[in-house]
Amino acid sequence: MTVTAAQGFLAGGVAAGIKESGAPDLALVVNRGPSRAAAGVFTSNRVQAAPVRWSRRVLADGRLTAVVLNSGGANACTGPAGARDARLTAERAAAAIGADAGDVAVCSTGLIGVPLPMDRVVSGIDAAAGRLSADGGENAAVAIKTTDTVHKTAATTRSGWTVGGMAKGAGMLAPGLATMLAVLTTDAEVSGPALDAALRAAVRTTFDRVDSDGCMSTNDTVLLLASGASGVTPGEGEFAEAVHAVCRDLARQLVSDAEGASKEIEVAVVGAASEEDAVTVARSVARNNLLKCALHGEDPNWGRVLSAIGTTDAVFDPDLLDVAINGVWVCRDGAAGEPRDTVDMSGRRIAVAVDLRAGDASAAVWTNDLTAEYVHENSVYSS
Amino acid sequence: MTVTAAQGFLAGGVAAGIKESGAPDLALVVNRGPSRAAAGVFTSNRVQAAPVRWSRRVLADGRLTAVVLNSGGANACTGPAGARDARLTAERAAAAIGADAGDVAVCSTGLIGVPLPMDRVVSGIDAAAGRLSADGGENAAVAIKTTDTVHKTAATTRSGWTVGGMAKGAGMLAPGLATMLAVLTTDAEVSGPALDAALRAAVRTTFDRVDSDGCMSTNDTVLLLASGASGVTPGEGEFAEAVHAVCRDLARQLVSDAEGASKEIEVAVVGAASEEDAVTVARSVARNNLLKCALHGEDPNWGRVLSAIGTTDAVFDPDLLDVAINGVWVCRDGAAGEPRDTVDMSGRRIAVAVDLRAGDASAAVWTNDLTAEYVHENSVYSS
Repeated sequence: MTVTAAQGFLAGGVAAGIKESGAPDLALVVNRGPSRAAAGVFTSNRVQAAPVRWSRRVLADGRLTAVVLNSGGANACTGPAGARDARLTAERAAAAIGADAGDVAVCSTGLIGVPLPMDRVVSGIDAAAGRLSADGGENAAVAIKTTDTVHKTAATTRSGWTVGGMAKGAGMLAPGLATMLAVLTTDAEVSGPALDAALRAAVRTTFDRVDSDGCMSTNDTVLLLASGASGVTPGEGEFAEAVHAVCRDLARQLVSDAEGASKEIEVAVVGAASEEDAVTVARSVARNNLLKCALHGEDPNWGRVLSAIGTTDAVFDPDLLDVAINGVWVCRDGAAGEPRDTVDMSGRRIAVAVDLRAGDASAAVWTNDLTAEYVHENSVYSS
Repeated sequence: MTVTAAQGFLAGGVAAGIKESGAPDLALVVNRGPSRAAAGVFTSNRVQAAPVRWSRRVLADGRLTAVVLNSGGANACTGPAGARDARLTAERAAAAIGADAGDVAVCSTGLIGVPLPMDRVVSGIDAAAGRLSADGGENAAVAIKTTDTVHKTAATTRSGWTVGGMAKGAGMLAPGLATMLAVLTTDAEVSGPALDAALRAAVRTTFDRVDSDGCMSTNDTVLLLASGASGVTPGEGEFAEAVHAVCRDLARQLVSDAEGASKEIEVAVVGAASEEDAVTVARSVARNNLLKCALHGEDPNWGRVLSAIGTTDAVFDPDLLDVAINGVWVCRDGAAGEPRDTVDMSGRRIAVAVDLRAGDASAAVWTNDLTAEYVHENSVYSS
């Protein structure tokens, strides 16, 4: 059910002492081949952490032997020293497993602007390398947690091959550590370009549609490594579907575990003139603080949905908008529809549906409610 | 200090019974001339309340005799019935003061999606018309309050002429009643086009730079009425400056009274390649929930400022960003600068300064922190 579900991968997780709490904080995932094909998707934030800059560079050739991940420090906004630390991390891991540093990706998560304690990172890498195993995936998943309450893993097995993965991140809700990391592995025999295509397509409609609090991290990274150890080359569509399923599973786990949240909200837009319009509207609704507060209070406040839609440039007529909350069409033709007191919002999941009545395209974004706990978690002094 | 500070204006405010609380909820402002020139700026939300649609139409000729304002109901997303109610409101006020309905603007604020109790609005208009007076401006300002804790007025007198005004709205923070209304008056003799130019210029750098919670209302309206009663025609620059001063004063009062807020935050961006870039960056920083939580917790979390800057398309180099919080440059060259523990954040006002080091343009946006009280105020059931 994790990065070692697929054949050809070893993993390990240890407590390196980066976190003051003494909890596990360093993970290593190693691809034993025979293939070393890999693909990655990184944050689109222009302020990018040193490990993101490093990993982007080493992935340029579509090849990875290993990934080092640490929690307890993001190594973001750390200047030239941070860049050096990311390189040293890769070099140490490469030496420990007998690989080339240019084939080792680095992922970090934690506070921004604070240098990593490199002595502990270095000894942690050595310790993790010494404990690599074919069932070490759970340990690795635990070691990348920050404020996650549970570790997140997923896997799907098809005819003779598997895609598995792990992720961390409380949506983009995590306090000061607003970072989403995911590593997927497969033993299918898939070329670098095909991996890249499958990963980009999957991320576009899964991780990219998680918008817990509208904040974009400096460290977000999703990697996919293929060992080819199964000897099976699946069809392109079949492989893309499996990668999508694992990404979707992990993304939903992020929303479920979002910090301080009491509701998991799906904003589904239909009847859009284009998928871009549908995403724009869904994202605007999902980011509206007033609506997120209302949904927290179990108030089916469709007026705030309309206010949010109205700020976009999507194609629609304000007098032809329909909105349903948990299946009740409380807004019809841009005005009050079915009685709002018939909406049951007592459960943890809330479905907001918007019909723009302007076309056939659709998209959904997942988010959370805005709670006093979110404020509390994110306002405690960060040091 | 309000809409009746300028000569030629009468105003009144009454409790019409629109609000269940019995608090004042209907105001009337009348321009006795000799001039009736007027200008207005309305919400850019594409979902616009019926009174906004009405007022926009009657203002097309640059002329207004009166403004009717009510709190207790936004008359937004109310369909064709809402449009009829806005027209009836103007017609009743016009009849009561002997004017043409096509010269009467209407402003409403309160819950979205709920029809106005027109019997009460109608009798309230008659009552307000019966109590119009040259010192009724304070009563009018009180009658447009929703969740405002204080009424907001401002005025400035120059050589022989005055600009005064009133406003309501707890930033854009108000729960379910997310509406900002402002009416300014002047006894200067100014043409419609000159009024329009002065108002647009002032709003662009005052009300439009207040971004309390990123939410855009369906009802925002700022009106400026000129009576010409002073007989003085000020210079264009002088007049624009006076209008700007009153708008700025009222806008700051909105931020000061923002619901649930414990901090008033100015995000000032300098060194931008263009004013547009400066506004884009300031707005992105001002809307970042994680940063707003950190500032609430008195945490000078410059990493969250950089994360927010990184999401924009402004011209900058991530490794050349400087950020100061309350005067301490905690971030230099995109990394840690002066010690963060030297930042005093105990006061109510917080200044966030960003130097993009990419040019000479600058802009500031005012916002508030994100608090548990904000969540509470906005999550209580809206009915």
